[in-house]
Amino acid sequence: MSNHLHLLLPFSIRAGQGPAYRQLARFMEGLVQSGLLSPGDRLPAEREVAAATGLSRTTVTAAYAELVARGLAEARVGTGTFVAPPTSPPAFSAVSPPWAEPPAVALDQVLSLATGPEQPPGAVISFVVGAPAPDLAPSSLPDAMAGALAQWGGLLPPHSPPAGLWELRCAIAAWMGGASPSPFPDEVLVTTGSQQGLYLVAQWLLRPGDAVLVERPTFFGALQLFKALGAYPVEFDLSALQPEQLRRHKPRLIYVNPTFRNPSGSLVDLDGRRRILDLARRLEIPVVEDDPYRELWFASPPPPRLWELAGDQPDVPIVTLGTVSKLLSPAIRLGWVVAKGPVLRTLMGLKQVSDLHTSLLSQGLALYYLQEVRLAAHAAAMRERCRRRRDRLIAALREHLPMAEFCPPDGGFYVWARLPGVNTLDLFPRAINHGVSFVPGPSFHAAGDGADWLRLSFASPPEELIGDGVRRLARALAELRQGP
Amino acid sequence: MSNHLHLLLPFSIRAGQGPAYRQLARFMEGLVQSGLLSPGDRLPAEREVAAATGLSRTTVTAAYAELVARGLAEARVGTGTFVAPPTSPPAFSAVSPPWAEPPAVALDQVLSLATGPEQPPGAVISFVVGAPAPDLAPSSLPDAMAGALAQWGGLLPPHSPPAGLWELRCAIAAWMGGASPSPFPDEVLVTTGSQQGLYLVAQWLLRPGDAVLVERPTFFGALQLFKALGAYPVEFDLSALQPEQLRRHKPRLIYVNPTFRNPSGSLVDLDGRRRILDLARRLEIPVVEDDPYRELWFASPPPPRLWELAGDQPDVPIVTLGTVSKLLSPAIRLGWVVAKGPVLRTLMGLKQVSDLHTSLLSQGLALYYLQEVRLAAHAAAMRERCRRRRDRLIAALREHLPMAEFCPPDGGFYVWARLPGVNTLDLFPRAINHGVSFVPGPSFHAAGDGADWLRLSFASPPEELIGDGVRRLARALAELRQGP
Repeated sequence: MSNHLHLLLPFSIRAGQGPAYRQLARFMEGLVQSGLLSPGDRLPAEREVAAATGLSRTTVTAAYAELVARGLAEARVGTGTFVAPPTSPPAFSAVSPPWAEPPAVALDQVLSLATGPEQPPGAVISFVVGAPAPDLAPSSLPDAMAGALAQWGGLLPPHSPPAGLWELRCAIAAWMGGASPSPFPDEVLVTTGSQQGLYLVAQWLLRPGDAVLVERPTFFGALQLFKALGAYPVEFDLSALQPEQLRRHKPRLIYVNPTFRNPSGSLVDLDGRRRILDLARRLEIPVVEDDPYRELWFASPPPPRLWELAGDQPDVPIVTLGTVSKLLSPAIRLGWVVAKGPVLRTLMGLKQVSDLHTSLLSQGLALYYLQEVRLAAHAAAMRERCRRRRDRLIAALREHLPMAEFCPPDGGFYVWARLPGVNTLDLFPRAINHGVSFVPGPSFHAAGDGADWLRLSFASPPEELIGDGVRRLARALAELRQGP
Repeated sequence: MSNHLHLLLPFSIRAGQGPAYRQLARFMEGLVQSGLLSPGDRLPAEREVAAATGLSRTTVTAAYAELVARGLAEARVGTGTFVAPPTSPPAFSAVSPPWAEPPAVALDQVLSLATGPEQPPGAVISFVVGAPAPDLAPSSLPDAMAGALAQWGGLLPPHSPPAGLWELRCAIAAWMGGASPSPFPDEVLVTTGSQQGLYLVAQWLLRPGDAVLVERPTFFGALQLFKALGAYPVEFDLSALQPEQLRRHKPRLIYVNPTFRNPSGSLVDLDGRRRILDLARRLEIPVVEDDPYRELWFASPPPPRLWELAGDQPDVPIVTLGTVSKLLSPAIRLGWVVAKGPVLRTLMGLKQVSDLHTSLLSQGLALYYLQEVRLAAHAAAMRERCRRRRDRLIAALREHLPMAEFCPPDGGFYVWARLPGVNTLDLFPRAINHGVSFVPGPSFHAAGDGADWLRLSFASPPEELIGDGVRRLARALAELRQGP
């Protein structure tokens, strides 16, 4: 039986929606658009579809013919029908301003690499996702959720304040403090994941044509966001800063990820952090400090955050983004922004009109974990387990892929490795064929270069399969170098 | 003991953050900013604060003096210290574009009227919130949440596709169908509440200075959003449409809420719906159909949605917004957009960069209810209970407030009533003193007029207190008319 047949089970014929074959074709188009079927996937055999849906074989044949005729699928003689490579989406030009064109689907595709087409367990060992594997997540989500709802006696309040529950803002402020000074609760804005925090800042500051300074390499979600708003990212090199050269771009914002950064895993030291602040002061523009990996240090706690270094009266706004995504789950979309009063109020106003407030289910769950040091205890356990996973990945790379160049990270989720002379975009489909996946380097570069790099997340695959995954990658590489 | 003292319990002194009195003053400022303390609220007595926090009486006195000195509080001899009326927020002008100023806090304030300052149960009977009271919500949220998590074996997937879980998109498409044609699942985009759906459309189409056509009166959340983006709402009258006059504004969008609309509770009939479509065609602009109340009909199901009337190949884009907020809870922030392919893909691209995807906790809960006709059964029960509440409110208005003019609604949550010659903004503080709250009319008008109207939600107060609430309102009105 085909691996994709189960995707068709929700399909049913709707009266008044046109011929059955066209409804089926359209349903399958939806599977492709939503990433559940990817280019190159083989469609289920026609007789299997007929059996599963109760449609006649003729109807299924007509549906497949329609998909092929529309360029959405390709029939290959003797082997079956396959999803065709994507074409560019039709532009909706009548009323659409140019900057609001659909952004590149890079992020979407990256996520679907690991979560999209369902494979038998273990069929693909995924180093793609920056999210904790089940053994890195806290023990029982259903228990925690029940505890979260019990805080309200099992009845959700009808609304949250736009900035988030006051108790949660207090708990986040305390969580960010620890040994260092903590923000005041009124400097914390709860967001629908830290992506929303970055989006709100971008909404506030960026207009089409504006430049944003970013590290090289940097987080693809940020690149995609800036491009979607019509702004353009300008890469800067912290070790050779040339403020005057950067000033020519009239940048509006600096975006950095200085602690175990995505994708390189590296850390900006105290001196580097001061240079970032100095750059912001010279250019008189705000800094966004994206800080999701801070708790996941393996050797020693990281240097202070930029907002701590900037002090109580910073010359330029410092906006720090935090999240529970890396400790609990990115799927609950719970993050926060820390900023001084006027900036925070501006972002809160935008937050309020964008989605009123963040889901109380997510806020309640985060509050539950932040109470009674549950999250702190979990973070400590997770540091140990992540370090073990990192060690395993590094040992496997050294053994099976000795050509890979990388700096072992002291925290976070990622090894960022270079395979000199290899195009990782070419390597990728072969790796999938060998049952392993990763994120190719160009996703992390503003101009789409960096093709000989790749990002490996040691947080997402089952720990015991890390070594096997690297062996598969080595085999894929050997095949690539051998040629067709 | 003061009603607000418990708000101070999360307060603690943080080392290195300045004098204790200043920390306390700042903490209390946060309570005001977050809506937990409102203008006019009495602050807890100083000795109570000292006892609750362990601070010295001198420290508390200094904190209160600081609040008064900064204009945040007012000392009234013999009665205590009160939160002062709001002042305009400081503008962050250095890098802030003019249109990104903090929007008016109307929506925030409206929500805090009912959820902000905690009062003893029954102290204020609130007709404010458009959310189901506990007896209108489905029976057990904890059980439902456990059922939702069980769908994944208790482990959340790390991510959802940006457009939402495919199963949920299928379930929403089927839910919207029923007797009428349903959209295809690939025409459904899951959003973080329907407010986000509207925000995405506004992001896509509106630039500062653009006009949007709105009904009169209309939903305050929409007005606030348009204004926050620098666009301006233009009211139109469906009974006297003058397309040429409207065209002069060069509007970019029509926003309507044709089914049991907020706030007026009224219904646009089939002919009116066709006129809306015709207006959109003449002006060649898209229509957003906000449709949260459709299931809550009391006499007969409402006319078809605009997207059904527009047919399969509409001349202009029709975007329909749906939600489970009114049937389950607005606090879970789960809504959806229905639109044709290219428009949907544009909105999905914006959705993806704004918050990646909607929380899987919320998606899972919605999917649980949409399965096995749970939501349909609940909606049927809710229709009955809402009708009973409406009848109760109408009977009470006729008995205790015979001057009120209104059309009994055939569905939804609201009675929209006129009190000729009364300024409901003046009535409001007196109503609060008498222990009842409502939303004054100006919130629903683009120009802030409509002062002799008010919106009463019959969904939010305890059913048995509806009559008492109207009696209190009548007493407040008598006091207002009597003069000071």
